[in-house]
Amino acid sequence: MLICRFRTGDREAYGIVDGDTVLEVQGGLFDGLKESGNKYGLSSVKLLPPVVPPTFYAAGINFPEHVTWAAQMRGEEPNLPKKADVGYRAVNALTGHGDPIMVPADATEELQYEGEVVVVIGKECRNVSQDEALDYVLGYTIGNDVSERYWQRNDRTMWRAKNTDTFKPMGPWIATGLNPDELHVTIQVNERVVGEYDLNTAIFGVREYISDMSKYLTLVPGDILWMGTDGATENMKDGDVCDITVTGIGTLSNPVVWGQA
Amino acid sequence: MLICRFRTGDREAYGIVDGDTVLEVQGGLFDGLKESGNKYGLSSVKLLPPVVPPTFYAAGINFPEHVTWAAQMRGEEPNLPKKADVGYRAVNALTGHGDPIMVPADATEELQYEGEVVVVIGKECRNVSQDEALDYVLGYTIGNDVSERYWQRNDRTMWRAKNTDTFKPMGPWIATGLNPDELHVTIQVNERVVGEYDLNTAIFGVREYISDMSKYLTLVPGDILWMGTDGATENMKDGDVCDITVTGIGTLSNPVVWGQA
Repeated sequence: MLICRFRTGDREAYGIVDGDTVLEVQGGLFDGLKESGNKYGLSSVKLLPPVVPPTFYAAGINFPEHVTWAAQMRGEEPNLPKKADVGYRAVNALTGHGDPIMVPADATEELQYEGEVVVVIGKECRNVSQDEALDYVLGYTIGNDVSERYWQRNDRTMWRAKNTDTFKPMGPWIATGLNPDELHVTIQVNERVVGEYDLNTAIFGVREYISDMSKYLTLVPGDILWMGTDGATENMKDGDVCDITVTGIGTLSNPVVWGQA
Repeated sequence: MLICRFRTGDREAYGIVDGDTVLEVQGGLFDGLKESGNKYGLSSVKLLPPVVPPTFYAAGINFPEHVTWAAQMRGEEPNLPKKADVGYRAVNALTGHGDPIMVPADATEELQYEGEVVVVIGKECRNVSQDEALDYVLGYTIGNDVSERYWQRNDRTMWRAKNTDTFKPMGPWIATGLNPDELHVTIQVNERVVGEYDLNTAIFGVREYISDMSKYLTLVPGDILWMGTDGATENMKDGDVCDITVTGIGTLSNPVVWGQA
């Protein structure tokens, strides 16, 4: 099942995507997804980030090749993480499928994509085992962890490098019933493949992150966990379009628009 | 005006604190604060964190003496931040006035308080000047940025060091009409003063943080910004009670309970 959040006119609602149609449901993501009877053409609605999370978690450096590349970029030896220490991103930065990535005028040319699988938590959990962890997942969506590398290297935190408004495109919808071990990610810029990887090559997988995090904190419905990206990444420029495709989910596509005040 | 969020029985509501009485209001924090007519004794209600923020910002190292102390703890030279680079904390960790700080059984003895002023954003803002910044503040509350220093030094991120469930007590309420330049913070453990400072000695003040953040991101009603703490901090042990008092707001008080699974 594909679950979207959308706007039509001045109304926002959740819906089930059925081919080219969106079947609106009553209430929110966790209100039973009962159809309201309203239907819309998929192309006629504006897709929104499929969930606004209570807490926005991000795995950060979680694939061997990306860790090695990032260390080389900093002139350091690669140092693989030994534990699933999770990081954070910010809700202000979320934007939907199709929305422009609005790049501030003072950003450097080092504006890069990171194509990621996003885990959406479906049930409250605390102290769950790795075997149980997937029982608490509602589904998966796609995220682009847009990063300004100069700010990332030079600021004390990643606040503007990764959390400038619109730097976190997410969508197009949440897909349920998937096996995370089978998810393959393909990243394209202007329809040229610039990276691809299998989620199951992550240093720490979905089960391990959820289990380890839940030893210290309570995950609640709607929390999201971005799983990190693999490989080297390249600069994007004004007018580029970045597409991230994940098997079983779909494609998140966003254009880059430079020079916002 | 003092604005609280509270629970009575199985109902949660906002209210105005008037001496020993809570005057319930209709709706949420941004629905006009119109009295519902219900009144409760302040001591008869459970105070909740006065807001659940869309994004939870934290200034981090923002006072000269604390920066120097933290550097010495790490065996490094103090390095004052040159820009108001904001960090993040997590909603899962929030807990209210009077609630226990529940310390995991595997925490080290280095469990410490940090008494902070919390800014609550009242209106959406983007690209505001320092002169305009305070127009977007609803009011101020108090936070205890509880930190497990061993995890803080050794984990890749501060996820469990600062964001374990209950490590972010906040309250008891939001006070409006205050001048941030006049706020004085006093921290006590078991009624012994362990630290005090004036907010106006911060490296970057409320106006500067809001203005600088708003150049890259949109602050929205309910967002919170914890301003950091000053001075050295000490370990707390099982049964200790940490009180943080800010002039014009009140006192946030939380006991420490060790050994949670």
